Amino acid sequence: MGHFKRVGVIARLDKPQVLDTVKKLLEYLQQIGKEAVLEEDLSSMLPGIKVDTAPLKQLGNQCDLAMVVGGDGSFLGAARAICNYDIPVLGINRGTLGFLTDISPHALAEELDPIFNGDFFEEKRFMIEAKIKRQNRPSGDGVALNDLVLHPGKSARMIRFDLFIDDQFVMNQKSDGLIVATPTGSTAYALSAGGPIMLPKLDALVLVPMHPHTLSNRPIVIDSNARIRIVVCESNLTYPSVSCDGQLHITAAPGDEIHINRKAGGIRLIHPKSHDFYDVCRNKLGWQTGYSS
Amino acid sequence: MGHFKRVGVIARLDKPQVLDTVKKLLEYLQQIGKEAVLEEDLSSMLPGIKVDTAPLKQLGNQCDLAMVVGGDGSFLGAARAICNYDIPVLGINRGTLGFLTDISPHALAEELDPIFNGDFFEEKRFMIEAKIKRQNRPSGDGVALNDLVLHPGKSARMIRFDLFIDDQFVMNQKSDGLIVATPTGSTAYALSAGGPIMLPKLDALVLVPMHPHTLSNRPIVIDSNARIRIVVCESNLTYPSVSCDGQLHITAAPGDEIHINRKAGGIRLIHPKSHDFYDVCRNKLGWQTGYSS
Amino acid sequence: MGHFKRVGVIARLDKPQVLDTVKKLLEYLQQIGKEAVLEEDLSSMLPGIKVDTAPLKQLGNQCDLAMVVGGDGSFLGAARAICNYDIPVLGINRGTLGFLTDISPHALAEELDPIFNGDFFEEKRFMIEAKIKRQNRPSGDGVALNDLVLHPGKSARMIRFDLFIDDQFVMNQKSDGLIVATPTGSTAYALSAGGPIMLPKLDALVLVPMHPHTLSNRPIVIDSNARIRIVVCESNLTYPSVSCDGQLHITAAPGDEIHINRKAGGIRLIHPKSHDFYDVCRNKLGWQTGYSS
Amino acid sequence: MGHFKRVGVIARLDKPQVLDTVKKLLEYLQQIGKEAVLEEDLSSMLPGIKVDTAPLKQLGNQCDLAMVVGGDGSFLGAARAICNYDIPVLGINRGTLGFLTDISPHALAEELDPIFNGDFFEEKRFMIEAKIKRQNRPSGDGVALNDLVLHPGKSARMIRFDLFIDDQFVMNQKSDGLIVATPTGSTAYALSAGGPIMLPKLDALVLVPMHPHTLSNRPIVIDSNARIRIVVCESNLTYPSVSCDGQLHITAAPGDEIHINRKAGGIRLIHPKSHDFYDVCRNKLGWQTGYSS
Repeated sequence: MGHFKRVGVIARLDKPQVLDTVKKLLEYLQQIGKEAVLEEDLSSMLPGIKVDTAPLKQLGNQCDLAMVVGGDGSFLGAARAICNYDIPVLGINRGTLGFLTDISPHALAEELDPIFNGDFFEEKRFMIEAKIKRQNRPSGDGVALNDLVLHPGKSARMIRFDLFIDDQFVMNQKSDGLIVATPTGSTAYALSAGGPIMLPKLDALVLVPMHPHTLSNRPIVIDSNARIRIVVCESNLTYPSVSCDGQLHITAAPGDEIHINRKAGGIRLIHPKSHDFYDVCRNKLGWQTGYSS
Repeated sequence: MGHFKRVGVIARLDKPQVLDTVKKLLEYLQQIGKEAVLEEDLSSMLPGIKVDTAPLKQLGNQCDLAMVVGGDGSFLGAARAICNYDIPVLGINRGTLGFLTDISPHALAEELDPIFNGDFFEEKRFMIEAKIKRQNRPSGDGVALNDLVLHPGKSARMIRFDLFIDDQFVMNQKSDGLIVATPTGSTAYALSAGGPIMLPKLDALVLVPMHPHTLSNRPIVIDSNARIRIVVCESNLTYPSVSCDGQLHITAAPGDEIHINRKAGGIRLIHPKSHDFYDVCRNKLGWQTGYSS
Repeated sequence: MGHFKRVGVIARLDKPQVLDTVKKLLEYLQQIGKEAVLEEDLSSMLPGIKVDTAPLKQLGNQCDLAMVVGGDGSFLGAARAICNYDIPVLGINRGTLGFLTDISPHALAEELDPIFNGDFFEEKRFMIEAKIKRQNRPSGDGVALNDLVLHPGKSARMIRFDLFIDDQFVMNQKSDGLIVATPTGSTAYALSAGGPIMLPKLDALVLVPMHPHTLSNRPIVIDSNARIRIVVCESNLTYPSVSCDGQLHITAAPGDEIHINRKAGGIRLIHPKSHDFYDVCRNKLGWQTGYSS
Repeated sequence: MGHFKRVGVIARLDKPQVLDTVKKLLEYLQQIGKEAVLEEDLSSMLPGIKVDTAPLKQLGNQCDLAMVVGGDGSFLGAARAICNYDIPVLGINRGTLGFLTDISPHALAEELDPIFNGDFFEEKRFMIEAKIKRQNRPSGDGVALNDLVLHPGKSARMIRFDLFIDDQFVMNQKSDGLIVATPTGSTAYALSAGGPIMLPKLDALVLVPMHPHTLSNRPIVIDSNARIRIVVCESNLTYPSVSCDGQLHITAAPGDEIHINRKAGGIRLIHPKSHDFYDVCRNKLGWQTGYSS
């Protein structure tokens, strides 16, 4: 099992079984002779265990593989934290298959042995970043693996903005907001807002209007390298936000410009050989599972 | 012009031309010998004009017709304020046809003379009310002509709740919220969230899930007399709100029950004889206007 | 078990297990002392069995309860055939719960004993009828429990028509056709075309445009007693059809008028006491089944 | 005006004004010293006019620019006919702006002079092709600029098929059919079926299910170089068709395989410098036209 030496372990302790899986994972890593580096916050929940620790933001610097225990939400947070380091990430789910986490916690050795033997495949997922400019000066930024969502900050308020793609005016929109999603995010929030599924490797972004006032405002799929610019109209009465993967929120103001584009680099996502994107769709989205019926 | 003696005049001064129309309306009413009662807040913006005034909430008590100058939004606010009085309401728009305001400000006498001559038709529009219960005690309430919208209070947070209709469990839903709309509201916010158009006189409500996590959660049309009960799950991390016509907001808490039902009474809406609901649809929604093409 | 004396038995032999269930049902009826009347076509498939038979259309005249073995599709055909007789109908499914057939074939006695003991509930479902007029003369008609669908006859051709409700012009529509669905049909084809779910007892119809050329043409919910008139434009190049529950097809021609309205009477649908409409929705539509999660 | 020497002229005479525009175009071409080659069928409608003629299929061989008079539909037919020749195409509309035809017939000289002076821009639009295989032998094929649509042949019948992308099983689908659209076709039929808008230059295809039986079957955007394979289930009772741009229809049979992929080459589309895709969207789709409101 010659692949990878130091393994970063990340988890969000939102469900009790997560901690249990983390313990099993640490035991497994020790058994196969790998060094573990535990995310700092996590280590405080595991007082008896002696392994190296590091703050989440620096974890990428100290290991050559990151493993995330939890749901797709935990994976998103980890991805944003380590995306500036060139190390692969692997997700261990909480018992049900996720789009990003496809190692089951119930048979760790069975599923992880092949990974450490080099029997996996790796895919690159790109990320996007938002930069807010106020009177031409930077006033906030964020990155996302799934989606950047512009919204009015308060529910039950519409937002009005001008949308430009590659400096061409597209439309003035009044809506509950706009979702800019990567292919990775196209099976998440954007899907519930009427966006299409985009295959993971597609070099595209989708812009999904949320409850647009104009009924013919529809999702638009654009090249992933296009430059998106959103100008928040001065007439808005609230301070809008840009949410990164629904987890981090950057505040904007009427008159601000929001620039969104593909981030250089991206995430190296590791899957077991058995991974099948369409199979996850069939399971998670409730498509028919049978080949015939 | 023997119909109506005292006319309440209501307006929201969100656009400059509204004040101008109010002045013209007052002149017109004086010319045809009607008494005007001006909404108190409005009268402070018209210092030179001597007419009776009354607070919005008491206006319904002092006149036998209410006239609202503004858009559909202004009409909604007025409707909620006077809905406990049995007087009809008439809407004067700001230049473009609305669903609720169909008197043009550009030819007041021409359009209003027939009204005061009794040449109009009147339709009843029902309203709905929400009552929030916390540990079985009332903790807030509100009424709406268009819609009551349950939302998480903050954007970019989902809400989870149990829905019951006539005490039968319907579903547990995780979404951006739920719109409960009357037929009057079915051409407003509910429509942009994927709800159907319901003809104004239909005795029905529509429940429209907002970006539901489960893709097969779809709008449900129910009898207007059904009792809706929503139980906000204890697991929610934010304080949800119920918005009344998008204008008033009642705060709820995790664990609260929200009871929604048809309000006794309703609004008596006056239209000129030329009013045609489908024509408003064709214009406002961008349907084809031609009879043939 | 004093309820019902003569039981009509109807089935569509589209799946092998149906015949098996019919045999078991006949045995059960004999055991509890009920007379069976077998649909004529069905009896020819059961050569050894000696019971009375009748053509489907006359079956309603010869029994006081009709039982349909099969899926929702079989039920629809039976409903249309017996809807002019005032007898209740009960559906036995083929193993998976249907919206109309909720007796399981796996435990016939257990599920049917209560029914014949009077322990059931009955609900009325209304039906709709279409009458085609060519140059003011009748040229075809049909009834439906689920839906009447106007379509161009050939796929991949659009149809253009004028729609009137209660003699008011609604719109000129160019689309793949129009679905007119009852509440019963709202969970069937109309749902896949974007229509809302309507609770079974609602007195309403929904008109769902199929792939309309104008994006803002949306489902419209109207009173079940409204009169719908569709005028097929002379410019259409194909002979459109009206499909009744997707099973019977009436041909129309350019220039024809199609009149659709609620049919007098309707169907008396019998359910076991355990029947729960929302439970069927949760199962068939893939809503979350849990009360909490 | 040194650009282009011989201009092919194509039109579909579905509206009377088309012939008039063709005559004006021929006059204009003569004035500026260009040779015209008239599509054969068209020349028979213009008996007095003496210009070279050619069958539509061979026109591409005899000119260095093709001009199509008519709507987007006429353009599609022309595009399929000349797509094997490496010449650019220009569309003259019938009075209203199209997505593909953006020269107005009302000011031909004014709009065409710049074109023949080389003041235009050219974009490549890719096309797709379908090949039907019956028992591993070719049994039909077709090409499309907008979309290839699999449908059951008869309306009001569903079709069941297995979908594979790059030889991976995606799903078994029961629906009214499947639309496979290019970016060019994404603003046409696919849009009315719920597909997203894809920017013209995107290297992607969208697969849009038509009224799918499973509500969570949603549009899927894939790389334009992906290989799509559809296996029509043996259980289908009708002979399905594949429609090319809604104009040509290839018949398939239960059990057939339909292979769809990007066609080598494509169409060279010429636009005046003033062309603005988003402007066409705003006009044709009824988005808000104003920059602010």
